[in-house]
Amino acid sequence: MKLYSYFRSSAAYRVRIALNLKGLRYETMPVHLLRHGGEQLSDAYRALNPTALVPTLVDGDLTVGQSMAILEYLEETHPEPALLPADAPGRARVRAIAQIIACDIHPLDNLRVLRYLKHEMNVSEEAKNAWYRHWVVEGLTAIEKLLAGKPQTGRYCHGDRPGFADLCLVPQVANARRFECDLGAMPTIVRIDAACAELPAFQQAAPANQPDAE
Amino acid sequence: MKLYSYFRSSAAYRVRIALNLKGLRYETMPVHLLRHGGEQLSDAYRALNPTALVPTLVDGDLTVGQSMAILEYLEETHPEPALLPADAPGRARVRAIAQIIACDIHPLDNLRVLRYLKHEMNVSEEAKNAWYRHWVVEGLTAIEKLLAGKPQTGRYCHGDRPGFADLCLVPQVANARRFECDLGAMPTIVRIDAACAELPAFQQAAPANQPDAE
Repeated sequence: MKLYSYFRSSAAYRVRIALNLKGLRYETMPVHLLRHGGEQLSDAYRALNPTALVPTLVDGDLTVGQSMAILEYLEETHPEPALLPADAPGRARVRAIAQIIACDIHPLDNLRVLRYLKHEMNVSEEAKNAWYRHWVVEGLTAIEKLLAGKPQTGRYCHGDRPGFADLCLVPQVANARRFECDLGAMPTIVRIDAACAELPAFQQAAPANQPDAE
Repeated sequence: MKLYSYFRSSAAYRVRIALNLKGLRYETMPVHLLRHGGEQLSDAYRALNPTALVPTLVDGDLTVGQSMAILEYLEETHPEPALLPADAPGRARVRAIAQIIACDIHPLDNLRVLRYLKHEMNVSEEAKNAWYRHWVVEGLTAIEKLLAGKPQTGRYCHGDRPGFADLCLVPQVANARRFECDLGAMPTIVRIDAACAELPAFQQAAPANQPDAE
């Protein structure tokens, strides 16, 4: 398998964690989002993934974008270890937590959006950072409520095995810290993030440990 | 089942189509996003769904938000008729198309985001509409490329049965038309949208046919 990835992309980071948790070997194909006016915008990359976003997974004849679609594909084709619970309500809970990040936080704070705010809307650096933090705090506050004190929550977001929710949460928390968001009201998230940080699958997927890290 | 819905919410619209395609009866619980300062922001609704977004599905003991998590739950608990193909690459393709809408278009053009642009960033009506159209056109252009001339594309996005990609596409196309986005370069999307419009499951899920329609 080949994963088109950028070390700092949190969507690629999710997929890297999943590949590692499942013990799948893959080749990293770096796509530098800032260099050469953005390599993801090149004709060559758009031919592979017309959204011009990372990640893209290539597995044999299949070329697929969208991190959440890739995660489901990996779960279906390499079911062990499972990254979703076995029961339908549990799977719904985990997917809902994952998608608060994938749908409600990350798309708003993505590089292309921050660029649009800056270049097309002439938004100040301060207003752009306030925007970034606003959506992180909105989304993580909701996740904290879904996690804290709930019987399904264990060492990780759902029970004592890491899964989709955790591998979305960790990259988002890393970004939140980079942008100095206040996580003081989110003790459950901070605790789960720390538990994940002990696992080699998460460590090896971290931006600093990628071949294209700077 | 109860679906907390707003007639114009395209995320709720997706779920309504899925429920109809699967022949599942449900009770609509209207959440008016504009009235009373936004009923989704009330303590009562937040207790149900801490993201303060629609839709929320209640099925017995399960309460779950996030339209894509709800769709997967319905597919798992009521597998017939299937809204995902049987093969993993096909499922990945359908989920990726659905998620271009669910992750790359809709979250950026959601009511709460347009409100933030207007009230927190003092963006003009014109700039706000340009923003709206920009993300619609970016996303739908990518989807058109994934659909046009591809052997997997049939009467619908994937073969000749409607599924996740179609039920995400139709609400997004409806919104695109409401905001006068130019769909001239997207003949495959326009054709598939028209094919879906012939199906009662799609017709009955349309905003105008909801109990809370205005």
